[in-house]
Amino acid sequence: MRPGNRTPAQTRPISITRNFTAHAEGSVLVEFGETKVLCTASFTEGVPRFLKGSGQGWLTAEYGMLPRSTHSRMDREAARGKQSGRTQEIQRLIGRALRAAVDLKQLGENTIVVDCDVIQADGGTRTAAITGACVALVDALNWARGKGLVKANPLKFLIAAVSVGIHNGEAICDLEYVEDSAAETDMNVVMTETGKIIEVQGTAEGEPFTHEELLTMLELAKHGIREIIDTQKAALN
Amino acid sequence: MRPGNRTPAQTRPISITRNFTAHAEGSVLVEFGETKVLCTASFTEGVPRFLKGSGQGWLTAEYGMLPRSTHSRMDREAARGKQSGRTQEIQRLIGRALRAAVDLKQLGENTIVVDCDVIQADGGTRTAAITGACVALVDALNWARGKGLVKANPLKFLIAAVSVGIHNGEAICDLEYVEDSAAETDMNVVMTETGKIIEVQGTAEGEPFTHEELLTMLELAKHGIREIIDTQKAALN
Amino acid sequence: MRPGNRTPAQTRPISITRNFTAHAEGSVLVEFGETKVLCTASFTEGVPRFLKGSGQGWLTAEYGMLPRSTHSRMDREAARGKQSGRTQEIQRLIGRALRAAVDLKQLGENTIVVDCDVIQADGGTRTAAITGACVALVDALNWARGKGLVKANPLKFLIAAVSVGIHNGEAICDLEYVEDSAAETDMNVVMTETGKIIEVQGTAEGEPFTHEELLTMLELAKHGIREIIDTQKAALN
Amino acid sequence: MRPGNRTPAQTRPISITRNFTAHAEGSVLVEFGETKVLCTASFTEGVPRFLKGSGQGWLTAEYGMLPRSTHSRMDREAARGKQSGRTQEIQRLIGRALRAAVDLKQLGENTIVVDCDVIQADGGTRTAAITGACVALVDALNWARGKGLVKANPLKFLIAAVSVGIHNGEAICDLEYVEDSAAETDMNVVMTETGKIIEVQGTAEGEPFTHEELLTMLELAKHGIREIIDTQKAALN
Amino acid sequence: MRPGNRTPAQTRPISITRNFTAHAEGSVLVEFGETKVLCTASFTEGVPRFLKGSGQGWLTAEYGMLPRSTHSRMDREAARGKQSGRTQEIQRLIGRALRAAVDLKQLGENTIVVDCDVIQADGGTRTAAITGACVALVDALNWARGKGLVKANPLKFLIAAVSVGIHNGEAICDLEYVEDSAAETDMNVVMTETGKIIEVQGTAEGEPFTHEELLTMLELAKHGIREIIDTQKAALN
Amino acid sequence: MRPGNRTPAQTRPISITRNFTAHAEGSVLVEFGETKVLCTASFTEGVPRFLKGSGQGWLTAEYGMLPRSTHSRMDREAARGKQSGRTQEIQRLIGRALRAAVDLKQLGENTIVVDCDVIQADGGTRTAAITGACVALVDALNWARGKGLVKANPLKFLIAAVSVGIHNGEAICDLEYVEDSAAETDMNVVMTETGKIIEVQGTAEGEPFTHEELLTMLELAKHGIREIIDTQKAALN
Repeated sequence: MRPGNRTPAQTRPISITRNFTAHAEGSVLVEFGETKVLCTASFTEGVPRFLKGSGQGWLTAEYGMLPRSTHSRMDREAARGKQSGRTQEIQRLIGRALRAAVDLKQLGENTIVVDCDVIQADGGTRTAAITGACVALVDALNWARGKGLVKANPLKFLIAAVSVGIHNGEAICDLEYVEDSAAETDMNVVMTETGKIIEVQGTAEGEPFTHEELLTMLELAKHGIREIIDTQKAALN
Repeated sequence: MRPGNRTPAQTRPISITRNFTAHAEGSVLVEFGETKVLCTASFTEGVPRFLKGSGQGWLTAEYGMLPRSTHSRMDREAARGKQSGRTQEIQRLIGRALRAAVDLKQLGENTIVVDCDVIQADGGTRTAAITGACVALVDALNWARGKGLVKANPLKFLIAAVSVGIHNGEAICDLEYVEDSAAETDMNVVMTETGKIIEVQGTAEGEPFTHEELLTMLELAKHGIREIIDTQKAALN
Repeated sequence: MRPGNRTPAQTRPISITRNFTAHAEGSVLVEFGETKVLCTASFTEGVPRFLKGSGQGWLTAEYGMLPRSTHSRMDREAARGKQSGRTQEIQRLIGRALRAAVDLKQLGENTIVVDCDVIQADGGTRTAAITGACVALVDALNWARGKGLVKANPLKFLIAAVSVGIHNGEAICDLEYVEDSAAETDMNVVMTETGKIIEVQGTAEGEPFTHEELLTMLELAKHGIREIIDTQKAALN
Repeated sequence: MRPGNRTPAQTRPISITRNFTAHAEGSVLVEFGETKVLCTASFTEGVPRFLKGSGQGWLTAEYGMLPRSTHSRMDREAARGKQSGRTQEIQRLIGRALRAAVDLKQLGENTIVVDCDVIQADGGTRTAAITGACVALVDALNWARGKGLVKANPLKFLIAAVSVGIHNGEAICDLEYVEDSAAETDMNVVMTETGKIIEVQGTAEGEPFTHEELLTMLELAKHGIREIIDTQKAALN
Repeated sequence: MRPGNRTPAQTRPISITRNFTAHAEGSVLVEFGETKVLCTASFTEGVPRFLKGSGQGWLTAEYGMLPRSTHSRMDREAARGKQSGRTQEIQRLIGRALRAAVDLKQLGENTIVVDCDVIQADGGTRTAAITGACVALVDALNWARGKGLVKANPLKFLIAAVSVGIHNGEAICDLEYVEDSAAETDMNVVMTETGKIIEVQGTAEGEPFTHEELLTMLELAKHGIREIIDTQKAALN
Repeated sequence: MRPGNRTPAQTRPISITRNFTAHAEGSVLVEFGETKVLCTASFTEGVPRFLKGSGQGWLTAEYGMLPRSTHSRMDREAARGKQSGRTQEIQRLIGRALRAAVDLKQLGENTIVVDCDVIQADGGTRTAAITGACVALVDALNWARGKGLVKANPLKFLIAAVSVGIHNGEAICDLEYVEDSAAETDMNVVMTETGKIIEVQGTAEGEPFTHEELLTMLELAKHGIREIIDTQKAALN
């Protein structure tokens, strides 16, 4: 039996709290069980130099973990003077996924910076971050449309993400830390609300996996993401 | 009239929430009005090399602001590759103040790292951080005593902090952002529960201030800190 | 028609030259068409501190591009003072993939560092790097066994990698630069000689992709990797 | 008795040598006993980008210690690749204090950079630096006025600084190293020639201090600064 | 007898391969025996800001060693986050020497960046780099003239370099690693095809050397460089 | 005529002041005309890890310029976060030259760090630094012998340095800034008191130079260094 008596296909309780902090144009606390990530979307007029005059906007993402979001304290990246490879990998993933959901032409020459900061970690921080960031992004876009800074809606579709994996030979959905650290295979999937795939990243941590296992994991991901997108929609209404 | 109809001597509503996150030995969300700081105290056995064999413990503090804790987004220090002078100044202050409250001999060869991360900023983040960190420290020390890792109580006294300043020619207590950014003088005071002074840092941002103004500000600080320490005690019971 | 008159399923000519440089225990120049990567495997006795006494070895990988391996000159990372997120992502991928192929217990307390340096880039540098690095690794392990530094063979299986993608709506294998930069979807696959999967990383650069497209790409990858592993085996005999 | 047979209120011999080096617009060697700091003020036309078109000038300060200005050699900050928190704290203090003495509107769109480099350290380097830098600043402003680059005199008043502290239970003025390293409380005070306060920074290094001790220290500081400002004036005539 | 049965005055076999890689405007693999350096010259229109409007061009050089170009693996400078003093010293030397060979006025407002990357090291990498870089530079200039980007030929003369030294009391030319690491004196000489000197850097690694030894070494260098320049000319025809 | 009415062979007035600062084991202010460099030699027991147990000592040097030692202010290297290539080149030269003068076996397992900090620059800072550092080194060695930390005298010979160059077609000795910045050729020479050569670094800044010019410059250097060593000896008596 999984912790919390979950079935293999079951995600943890997902919770999305909008307007969690006061200043950002979009600010969301997303919780996947005990994993809690604060996602803010900051809208500013103007674009980086390489896009000036292109008529096109820009969206980028950054990710961080509070030093004691984890079981034992991690070094603070600001104090060490650089972001780890893992951090950079995750923030590149978040940015890439969100850019796939936005029509940058429609955004006009404006910039959105998404910050995902892990307050408490229990596995799946990157998939929670993508899920929460998408909602913060919607809020920031609506804010900009309300101000007349953006005309048409640049959002192409909602996106959400979940992790799946093989644990004790069984495919499971939305791994928490104790499962994640013992999984043979770990896969993160980002999908659209229309069921298409934006990103698949599957890694054999222990034994290589088979084509069949890949298909089973994909099935679980599809099902989990559908539920998560329902939660996003409920939060947005 | 001050924002929120406060009198000059009045602090903002102070709230202290213990056990805000799950992993740290002490974890406190402290709120001074709209300023919200997450303070964790991480206890680990052992000390840095320069103290090995000394029989004495170590306590250090780090401070950070989430990029969108502020009105407009700040660069992420981890991405820029260094902590600003302001950040270093504040974390040195927090560490110094907390070390004054702890008998490092009684702590034994153990280390406490305090992390103060600003979730939302509205003035007074350093004084809120010291106030919240002291409570997180108490929790971490009690955790360690419960585990038998520390014998006698290393805490010498509670400490708390508040900012005072001269604004429009009048001395006021616990400045929020709109006041702070327009104040002629800004002073941070850290005191013990017994009314003694640990740190005084007064700076003329505009006009130099007089000896009398200094005394008036000190009086406000003393009064404000007394109330804040009452809030700490209530939270700890 | 693809450049070089390739069919969709066809890889570029793959060439593997062993002993390309003199000093490394394994040194391989791998060519996927015009993409040329020098892969060296350096064997040293001893392990990093966190593994001392564990009886287990360590393997890590680094990746770099010569500044003018690309169409226009890139900044030298050593001069800029940091490795880009892309570089770190790739070297983490290479290291993870190779570790999956090695029994670190059998390696004993020894360390292998793999360096993959791109001499000339034309798309698919990371998949070429993994493919060449695996051969360099085999040479370094054989060197170590010849010296009696390693007893049993730590290699579990050969691994190789190829990129696949959707380009003009069609799935194609081993994308060269002009294809890669215009592809809607880009996927890198690492597999074992036994046909199992070690890593799948699929990214929608433009439109999201469907489950069926994913399956078609996987099929191409499986077929391409089988051929690449034949080339590895031929080079090793 | 204090070293050098000083009374508690007595500063060390203060010496101010103008035109100590040839190139800077203002160049002062300031000596507080054995503490020797070279302070240069560099005047350049133009301001940083954020002030362009504001009609307002800028003043900033940097601080450093020669590696062997201290009893045992310190690491060179340029070689370590970053300035310590202490260095940043001190240079921020120097810059803040000098800006309080200057009407930046009157300075026009010009920049003054003050460099304070400790040649020999024996306690009180930051207060010596502020004292010497003020004289270098006056020389640089006079140079600029002589050249017609600045019209009216931007200097509002002279400023000077001194350290005070509690040592063996007694308040003393201008602590040298052996006193400073054993003091229970250390306080740096910056004042104007009109007796107003620009900065007060008091820290309990050992025991917290009382309101009365604070007042006694302030009294000593006021008296010491008055004498130091007389020395500045003598040097400037 | 020297390794390879060389006479004291004899250089190693020198080989120069043009068009070694595809993208650079000039790309040369230079080999001095077992020392192999890839030299690329990248031509771009425009100059750094400090030269804009001057009508003058710019040329700069960078140098690096692949981590396993050496007997035991060196740390990758990009991963350590900085270039060593040795690297910077060498790349400054290469840039200075090449600039002496080019009329920057004739180059017009264009920039050439030369990259010298050591593929395999066996002593004399800096002199091989200068020699190969000069040929890559010629190719890049010819490319630019072919495109009409540069009018008259900016090349003033060919340059080449060789190392000489005192080893076992005897002056020898073009030291390989085993000689270099045991030499008492090591001298690098850069000369023009007309026999004039561009750079002389002689260092006593062990015993100081005499005026006569300096003259003998210079004689060997002159002779060696004459041959190397013949090889350059042959490669360019 | 040269500035200061010097003949081509004449050095500027050289002055060497020992015990310039209080803490270092050797502390020398060296002046070559208006060039002023503070050289300290710090003696500590023990050696870096790579020499432990070797019975051999270590000597290293660092170099810096105060930001306003120059005509216009230079960026502070500590603030920029790295030392320039020029700085590293110079400090490597100083260290290499001094190591040639010391028998590291006789030094025993002790370390000397030499710091050369330019207070005021007017050309020839590196040659002044070597000259002053040698005297500081002698003082530090004598201090150590007085304390019994070093037995026999590790100093093999005094060393000194001077710059020579070709300026307006004429060879001159000890170039000051206005000469240096207009010289066609610049050469730094380090020699022993016995007239042997430790380092020769000649660079064509403009036109390449001839063998004959090299010989003339060497002659000037030899003569100049002989006088400088006399000044060192006078200072040491």
